[in-house]
Amino acid sequence: MQTRDHILLTPGPLTTTLRTKLAMLRDWGSWDTDFIAVTAKVRKSLLDVIHGHDSHVVVPLQGSGTFSVEASVATVVPRDGHVLVLDNGAYCKRAAKLTQMMGRRCTVIGFADNERISATALEAHLNSDASVTHVMMIHCETGAGVLNPLQSISDVCGKYGKGLIVDAMSSFAALEIDARKLQFDALIAASGKCLEGVPGMGFVFIRKSVLAKCEGQSLSLAMDLFDQHQYMEKTGQWRFTPPTHVLVALAEAIAQFEEEGGQPARLARYTRNCESLVRGMQALGFKPFLDSSIQAPIIVTFHAPGDKRYEFRKFYEAAKARGFILYPGKLTEIETFRVGCIGAIDQNEIEQAVHAVALTLQDLGIESGKPAN
Amino acid sequence: MQTRDHILLTPGPLTTTLRTKLAMLRDWGSWDTDFIAVTAKVRKSLLDVIHGHDSHVVVPLQGSGTFSVEASVATVVPRDGHVLVLDNGAYCKRAAKLTQMMGRRCTVIGFADNERISATALEAHLNSDASVTHVMMIHCETGAGVLNPLQSISDVCGKYGKGLIVDAMSSFAALEIDARKLQFDALIAASGKCLEGVPGMGFVFIRKSVLAKCEGQSLSLAMDLFDQHQYMEKTGQWRFTPPTHVLVALAEAIAQFEEEGGQPARLARYTRNCESLVRGMQALGFKPFLDSSIQAPIIVTFHAPGDKRYEFRKFYEAAKARGFILYPGKLTEIETFRVGCIGAIDQNEIEQAVHAVALTLQDLGIESGKPAN
Repeated sequence: MQTRDHILLTPGPLTTTLRTKLAMLRDWGSWDTDFIAVTAKVRKSLLDVIHGHDSHVVVPLQGSGTFSVEASVATVVPRDGHVLVLDNGAYCKRAAKLTQMMGRRCTVIGFADNERISATALEAHLNSDASVTHVMMIHCETGAGVLNPLQSISDVCGKYGKGLIVDAMSSFAALEIDARKLQFDALIAASGKCLEGVPGMGFVFIRKSVLAKCEGQSLSLAMDLFDQHQYMEKTGQWRFTPPTHVLVALAEAIAQFEEEGGQPARLARYTRNCESLVRGMQALGFKPFLDSSIQAPIIVTFHAPGDKRYEFRKFYEAAKARGFILYPGKLTEIETFRVGCIGAIDQNEIEQAVHAVALTLQDLGIESGKPAN
Repeated sequence: MQTRDHILLTPGPLTTTLRTKLAMLRDWGSWDTDFIAVTAKVRKSLLDVIHGHDSHVVVPLQGSGTFSVEASVATVVPRDGHVLVLDNGAYCKRAAKLTQMMGRRCTVIGFADNERISATALEAHLNSDASVTHVMMIHCETGAGVLNPLQSISDVCGKYGKGLIVDAMSSFAALEIDARKLQFDALIAASGKCLEGVPGMGFVFIRKSVLAKCEGQSLSLAMDLFDQHQYMEKTGQWRFTPPTHVLVALAEAIAQFEEEGGQPARLARYTRNCESLVRGMQALGFKPFLDSSIQAPIIVTFHAPGDKRYEFRKFYEAAKARGFILYPGKLTEIETFRVGCIGAIDQNEIEQAVHAVALTLQDLGIESGKPAN
């Protein structure tokens, strides 16, 4: 019998605190001043995280994080713009796809799943193609878990005068993102990631100096962040029904984030989680997919064990029976699985999870997590 | 001191039961079989409500209800399609706007805010303009609260072979909608309305026979209901992170809807609420904006009192101090306010609300709710 909640070792939705969830036990009128105050407080806190009050605004948007990624491109990139996507994983490919679907010109530079995108390659491309107007990258590509070099990409974009759009979904609030040091037109994250809220809304930081030029660029009403921002500034309200319970949970999650010590404290906890996870899993024979030098402390991809008795579905169910929810791999060529280091968990839960994986291997009669090659 | 929750007399977000909110006290892995089962159960229940299993599929979508309206047009209407919007209020105008923004041809037939759209006018228009491919209407236009004639509009669309898109946001689960009697290509509603869930997702019923033709029509990845449906059928999962807590709350809300006796029971309760509200407010001198023959039992628009001491903001705050959240009017020409009849409330709350309004008038020194004219 499973009475305790499972621990989610997934990259969002993730395990949230009871305090965060308890915030959802009230109903809020979306037009009411109390709710308007929550929206304002969340927006202020989000700008605090990136030291962005002088340079950027933040625009919340209903829906999943991908909706906010699409909205960023739709809003920030002119209809005759040309987006260059630096692609080292599944979420980059999705960004390119949504850019193409809305009719914006899009070029993709491909990198391997197990390497970082490269500022040098970007610079070479920009030298050969002056038509690019915007560069798009993913800070932590959770497809494999790579930490991409945000600062150096930003520096190149600054040097060449290109707009930068950063999907920081899985890094925001855990890895350092400082608007005073970086040069981006839009940076996107969501409620249910490293802020440890529940899923249901995203938010986009937009550079103030580009915002004015964004009017009328979106082909989509729902995705129009210019319009969303205008309305919110004017009324304090959301244009369309907000996910009220998700927002108040996010406000409560942010309060805990601030009490914990903000981004540096969160990074320290996730780093301990990640190190503990990798160490423990390696002791069981598992091999991380990435070189540790490019591994973000967000989600770790492991090679599937080489043992013939291994089958992800069985492995997953056995780990779940012991209380832990793992995550499937997202690589197309190699069989892998993923384990998240984020959420309202610390080294205790990670050590318990590794122990559960050890017992799971025993359950399945697998001697070691060692991959085939 | 306000310790009890306010009663929301708003058209969504609305007051939900504690049981519905308590369902949000767990975290769910979006990839997990338990969550997949919740998604499947909700989808089945939604089709039950409209007797639509033979004729329609249902596709849930993240975001507010408007996102689902936009997604319906983006998915169901071909790029060279021509949408005719039957407009008698603010939400109709929004539907026309989003249709135009995505580049679909759009024509609007305007009706007054205080009258129904007309099947006769639709038929006359279709006789004069054969290029129309789709007709769009709002079942209950909450701008004023008008109940539009869904059956007769559907009959005309059937006769002329036009696709019908119905925004049933505020009527679904309260007013009868029977897919066996109606002819619609898409019908849209959302979690935080008459099903009495929390806001954060919408859902669209799409006619099976048109679904296959919808591939590749959307210019937006996020809004592509064909793609969302394909992926969900194949995997049981949502394409992008679902609002997990919102969905489990909706599942719990639907269980209570079914226990209450489904749509007929809900309509009966809302009708009692509406009658009680109108009777009570009329006794205080207030005058409903609509003729009772076209008033949906969802939300009632009242003329603002003619008394010079009346000011909506003060009236609102005074009613709020007594525990009740009212809703502003949405008419541009006439000063009004709105009171919702929906949510997890019954005649008791409505009677208490009317009593609170009576005391509020006293607070403000207003003798009667009688309008100026």
